[in-house]
Amino acid sequence: MTLVSADRRRFPAEPWSLVEAAHVPGDAGTLETLFTLGNGHLGLRGAHASAQDAQLPGTFINGFHETFDIRHAENAYGFAKQGQRILYVPDGQEATVRINGEELTLAATPVLDYRRTLDFAAGVYECTVVWQTSSGAVVTTRERRAVGAASRASLTIELVVTADRRVVADVASAVVNRQDQPAEDGSAHDPRRAGRHAGRVLSPLRAEGGPTGSLRLAWATAESRQRIALAVEHETNATVPPFSTEADCDRSTVRYVLPLDPGEEFRLEKRLAYAVEPAPEPEWEEFDSYAGTAASHADAGISVDALLASAEASLRGIEDLAAESAAHYARYWATADVEIGGQPELQQAVRWNLFQLAQATAQAGVAGIPAKGVSGSGYEGHYFWDQEVYLMPYLTYTAPDSARQVLEFRHRMLPAAKARAAELNVDGALFPWRTINGQEASAYYAAGTAQFHINAAIAFAASRYAWATGDEAFRTGEGAELLSETARMWASLGFFGKDGKFHLHGVTGPDEYTAVVNDNLYTNVMARFNLRAAASLEHHSVSETDRLLWTEAAARMALPYDVEQRVHAQDNDFMTLQQWDWDTPRDKYPLLLHFHPLVIYRHQVLKQADTVLAMFLQWEDFTDEEKQRAFDFYDPITTGDSTLSPCVQGIMAAEVGYTATALAHFTTAAFIDLDDLHGNTVDGVHTASAGGVWAALANGFAGFRDQGRAPRFDPRLPEGWESLAFRLRLRGRTLAVRVTPAAITLGLEPGPDSGALGGVALNGTGRLDVEVRGRVYAVGAEPISIPLEPVAEPEPSVFPDPTPTAGLAAVAAMR
Amino acid sequence: MTLVSADRRRFPAEPWSLVEAAHVPGDAGTLETLFTLGNGHLGLRGAHASAQDAQLPGTFINGFHETFDIRHAENAYGFAKQGQRILYVPDGQEATVRINGEELTLAATPVLDYRRTLDFAAGVYECTVVWQTSSGAVVTTRERRAVGAASRASLTIELVVTADRRVVADVASAVVNRQDQPAEDGSAHDPRRAGRHAGRVLSPLRAEGGPTGSLRLAWATAESRQRIALAVEHETNATVPPFSTEADCDRSTVRYVLPLDPGEEFRLEKRLAYAVEPAPEPEWEEFDSYAGTAASHADAGISVDALLASAEASLRGIEDLAAESAAHYARYWATADVEIGGQPELQQAVRWNLFQLAQATAQAGVAGIPAKGVSGSGYEGHYFWDQEVYLMPYLTYTAPDSARQVLEFRHRMLPAAKARAAELNVDGALFPWRTINGQEASAYYAAGTAQFHINAAIAFAASRYAWATGDEAFRTGEGAELLSETARMWASLGFFGKDGKFHLHGVTGPDEYTAVVNDNLYTNVMARFNLRAAASLEHHSVSETDRLLWTEAAARMALPYDVEQRVHAQDNDFMTLQQWDWDTPRDKYPLLLHFHPLVIYRHQVLKQADTVLAMFLQWEDFTDEEKQRAFDFYDPITTGDSTLSPCVQGIMAAEVGYTATALAHFTTAAFIDLDDLHGNTVDGVHTASAGGVWAALANGFAGFRDQGRAPRFDPRLPEGWESLAFRLRLRGRTLAVRVTPAAITLGLEPGPDSGALGGVALNGTGRLDVEVRGRVYAVGAEPISIPLEPVAEPEPSVFPDPTPTAGLAAVAAMR
Repeated sequence: MTLVSADRRRFPAEPWSLVEAAHVPGDAGTLETLFTLGNGHLGLRGAHASAQDAQLPGTFINGFHETFDIRHAENAYGFAKQGQRILYVPDGQEATVRINGEELTLAATPVLDYRRTLDFAAGVYECTVVWQTSSGAVVTTRERRAVGAASRASLTIELVVTADRRVVADVASAVVNRQDQPAEDGSAHDPRRAGRHAGRVLSPLRAEGGPTGSLRLAWATAESRQRIALAVEHETNATVPPFSTEADCDRSTVRYVLPLDPGEEFRLEKRLAYAVEPAPEPEWEEFDSYAGTAASHADAGISVDALLASAEASLRGIEDLAAESAAHYARYWATADVEIGGQPELQQAVRWNLFQLAQATAQAGVAGIPAKGVSGSGYEGHYFWDQEVYLMPYLTYTAPDSARQVLEFRHRMLPAAKARAAELNVDGALFPWRTINGQEASAYYAAGTAQFHINAAIAFAASRYAWATGDEAFRTGEGAELLSETARMWASLGFFGKDGKFHLHGVTGPDEYTAVVNDNLYTNVMARFNLRAAASLEHHSVSETDRLLWTEAAARMALPYDVEQRVHAQDNDFMTLQQWDWDTPRDKYPLLLHFHPLVIYRHQVLKQADTVLAMFLQWEDFTDEEKQRAFDFYDPITTGDSTLSPCVQGIMAAEVGYTATALAHFTTAAFIDLDDLHGNTVDGVHTASAGGVWAALANGFAGFRDQGRAPRFDPRLPEGWESLAFRLRLRGRTLAVRVTPAAITLGLEPGPDSGALGGVALNGTGRLDVEVRGRVYAVGAEPISIPLEPVAEPEPSVFPDPTPTAGLAAVAAMR
Repeated sequence: MTLVSADRRRFPAEPWSLVEAAHVPGDAGTLETLFTLGNGHLGLRGAHASAQDAQLPGTFINGFHETFDIRHAENAYGFAKQGQRILYVPDGQEATVRINGEELTLAATPVLDYRRTLDFAAGVYECTVVWQTSSGAVVTTRERRAVGAASRASLTIELVVTADRRVVADVASAVVNRQDQPAEDGSAHDPRRAGRHAGRVLSPLRAEGGPTGSLRLAWATAESRQRIALAVEHETNATVPPFSTEADCDRSTVRYVLPLDPGEEFRLEKRLAYAVEPAPEPEWEEFDSYAGTAASHADAGISVDALLASAEASLRGIEDLAAESAAHYARYWATADVEIGGQPELQQAVRWNLFQLAQATAQAGVAGIPAKGVSGSGYEGHYFWDQEVYLMPYLTYTAPDSARQVLEFRHRMLPAAKARAAELNVDGALFPWRTINGQEASAYYAAGTAQFHINAAIAFAASRYAWATGDEAFRTGEGAELLSETARMWASLGFFGKDGKFHLHGVTGPDEYTAVVNDNLYTNVMARFNLRAAASLEHHSVSETDRLLWTEAAARMALPYDVEQRVHAQDNDFMTLQQWDWDTPRDKYPLLLHFHPLVIYRHQVLKQADTVLAMFLQWEDFTDEEKQRAFDFYDPITTGDSTLSPCVQGIMAAEVGYTATALAHFTTAAFIDLDDLHGNTVDGVHTASAGGVWAALANGFAGFRDQGRAPRFDPRLPEGWESLAFRLRLRGRTLAVRVTPAAITLGLEPGPDSGALGGVALNGTGRLDVEVRGRVYAVGAEPISIPLEPVAEPEPSVFPDPTPTAGLAAVAAMR
């Protein structure tokens, strides 16, 4: 499947925007995702105004969710009890334009001209369509959308209608509270509509309309007992009031009917602002009674009037929001932009990905980052390990304050994670594999709870944030608590075997094509980091006993290694598994949709990078040769059935020196959504992959590494790239990096908080020590340029061809 | 929990009956199971007549079930789609007796005398209660129940009421179609009543009553589209007709009101007969559309009138049924009895277990044997591997014709098993872990579908039947097909590894406390048997290629072995797992109810015998020392959380020579239900354990083994047993076996089918070659007595004490 890169006349490679220059039927839902506007708190999918042209319209608010009992077909002790699901909140995208009684839709009305733009620099959506109506009039509609930055709960849609002759325009603006909203149903052989929203999704609390087209609406969820208010105002340049205003809990409309002279504009501004009651704090000690707790809280919550007043106060005009947005993105790109010289198509794709990262994180506040940001309901709006491993590097090095907020959010989940640990018979804290409210929501433990490695991802993200920022308050506060409680979990999960090694059994690594294995290398390597980091803490909660145990467990950590093939093994048994049949036809991928887990698990086949990811994240723990052999062994058996994979494969290919392979993997990652490579972009942006694109640039092609001492660069610029330039926030300063084939140029820019925090980690001279290919440079305000020699591509490792393992051929080979 | 053995005044150790000599409140549901009457086709739980005294009354018909969609909380390819559940069929047990308006219930009426008997020899239930009514009258009720043998769909209940003075008796006989019937809900944190029977369980087709107290009733299931008819007649010695007859789809009553003179008997006989429409044959090729197929079949099915006529024709009086039953059990015990000299309590327990075996199997016809027989709805009435491994040995050696019918039933499932194999990406046939209609119904694959070993259990049972009977038609027909299609599955599931061995990965053995492991020893040993047996077939479906592959796979089968400890390993990783914490308090058992599977799976702890079971079933494949070391290693870490375990532990303890341990395990097995040792006897008899009791006697204490050549005996009589005597059907003859501490006596009795079949396997002289402790004897009609030397108890193997594996103690130990 390809989309954007398949038709460059329709999607020209503009540097600062995604442009759709012609309308072609089909792919509406995918394009709604690609044209989403959001700010990390509030998101509006890029659906067309007419309901007939929209496939999966929706507005989302990060964390606004419903809960439900998970019904296991065969339950067991400790299985996740409560599911959580992000909701489609009542949505203001819809507007119906009728000209002389004829409804304008892309589906039915001839289109003379069409242009839709998502402006990365301004953060504005715009869509202009010129219509040939059957009454002869040529009509132009221009829609402009903006979401707030500081006004994070605010969005405004401007609609301008003109005609080339006198017409009667009839414009109906709607607010829709979808009761048929799609709900992911894990039980896939049942129709989606038979899903778990058995009753109403949002129950009405208030629905009032005013004569000027104002709406005051409020609802509550049935189970999670969250409330949401929506204030809507309609401003027009018309002298007449609305023809009608109907306020209704499921579908409100404000309708204008008026004559338009030739060239006369009818301008309608629909301003929306939401206010959401915070989710009740569950009482973690007795989380079985969560529903009851929530109910009693709702009674004591904020009044509907107060919620509505808060929403009203957030209403903004389109120009105000556009200005807020433009200012925000000017600041954003000043730090976060990545420039690629000589590659306009990749440049656009990279900026689209960076724009998605901004949209998923900018104004999230102390909240998690859903797997789809606020662009769709995919993965039910849950927070996964992606957040720490794929998004936190980007956030830490471009927006450290936002990174801190995400870590504070994890820290607030500690009580829940401790309760979950007790339930799983381990000490300390065990973070949920997927969650919104802190409770484990994964209904399949083998690819959920068994992924204990999320604990290490959190510890690693906390450590990296502390290294990168020098934020002592965090390091000795929330950071220390996260590190020690996660380490406690590892120390009790594992044990010292008869071989004198420390083992972690019954875990699943990132690669979900094996599950519940012993000594998954990724898990063990990351747990070792976690234990070491915690053992080095000076914190009142860490006893000498803890320190001794954690140090010993880390020192003795078992790392499976295949002596014969001289390559690290994904787990204790992986090297003994049967080869996958690589003649499997392409339409049987992703394998998880076509083979029983028992079939997949018993074969040597990977969904995503696992050992290779460990070697990227804990790069100091492995030699160059180990990394190359691991890459050579695992890359051919990695299906990439996960969108988390190609970016990591690209990073390690770059480090090993396979620059062309690195570029191929990177390009796949950059176009995963733009080309709908996994066929599910309709469900939302693959935000983690977008984070991986940033990492593939910074860590992959620029070879940036940071493990708490001098940051390091070892660039691998792909063939045909004239330059790669970006900035990193480090120790309160901004390091500008520019890589060309011949040199790397480094210089410090003043950072906004270069005072207190920055001082500590700099080398005393106001300069930052940076290592480039083994040599340390003191980088100051004056950029320095360090020449680079080309890196030769290494000879690939040779592994013996596999002998047949099945059938008579195997019997013959054995003889 | 103990019940029968705790109070021998209440439950005296009668040799041929279970007697409850006094009423004590509590345990009503457990006793309903213990006093069940059944014939393998039809079962009636032993509930008291008054609804107020019944806890879980019910009538069951083997295979009469409802189906439902399994909704997985997180579905994946190949997960089981359709659940099946045995139903409580409309039940005639209830009768209400009122004397002068006062209802007689054990709960409320003073009881002067009480005696309930389940007569193993006659197959009759009887309960006599003497009541002190508040009006002063002393009333005696006597209830007698019998189910048919040849009339297998027939049951009759006789109720006799007398009083010591003139009273008005009011007796209401009911037929209840329970709509609140308990349904197992795998999602255990939901209340049972919110289970899957969302609508009506049985929908009415007919409900008619006649003036003489006759009822003609019929219903249909909603999803499986099976129909059931019930004809009821009431016969009395009274001259008056019923006071009222109400026919209703859910609750029909026939009421008698009449004066009784002192000593005058009112005798009411309630005759019931069922007729069940056979389940529609699913079209296996497209089993997704099963429901649709079934629906269309039902339209074309037998008419309700015909079903009712068939039921009517089966109606029998109590004396007829009691006579049928007595004749049946006379024949039964003549072959199946096992006598234990000098152990009256064990003797009674053994006979109760043998009686349950008869009740679960006798008239099943070509059907499977549910895990609870027809005594309860536990395990949803499903057929498991228990059938082949725990019940078929008993059936094969005591009722070979019934054994053949069970194998024919499995054979009829071959098309479904082939379809399932294709879905699981393997060749041949893969039998469902649990099923009624042939489709996999296990909703948790790790302890369900992953138990591929059920294939080998079926192949083994088929082979044993052929050895024991010499039934050539079966051996070369259904037997060959079962063997070859199961072997095909193994050959494709496994592969030849780089070590030259044949491996079976990603399987679960009988011990469900580890799951989805590589090279489970039990599975591999049993698969090896299966492959060898299939390779030796002369059958048109077996090619030379098959034979070569199967032979090689069997010859190279990987059998995990711990060289250091000199003991076979349960699987490739088992010996590397952490020790279980044996200080875990007793109330945390069974572990599966108190620990997450991930916790259990990563520890060295067993639910039930696994390696030890392999060494019993494939006894020729292991040396005495291997068996002893395995027993010594595994027995202490086997929790016995499964009722399938103690019988097997007992058998292997006996073989190893630990006679006291063997007796302890055996006693546990014999009293599992009588003492409600697992607290769930209320759900039905643990039929497999009853089969295991037979095996523990024949295979354990008598040391009987049979692998197709001369049957072998190596007795190990426990201390205090004067004798152990039983009969085995072998090659069409009946071998009488009597073991005393000093000798084993063997002799051939004429068998009912000693002609055609029997001849082939006898040694030409009309004698049967039997091996006793290494020496072969030709046994004929004249019993021969072979002296036995006592067997010395061996020294237990010494394994080093485990070193600490967790915490600082482990760190210290490592230094």
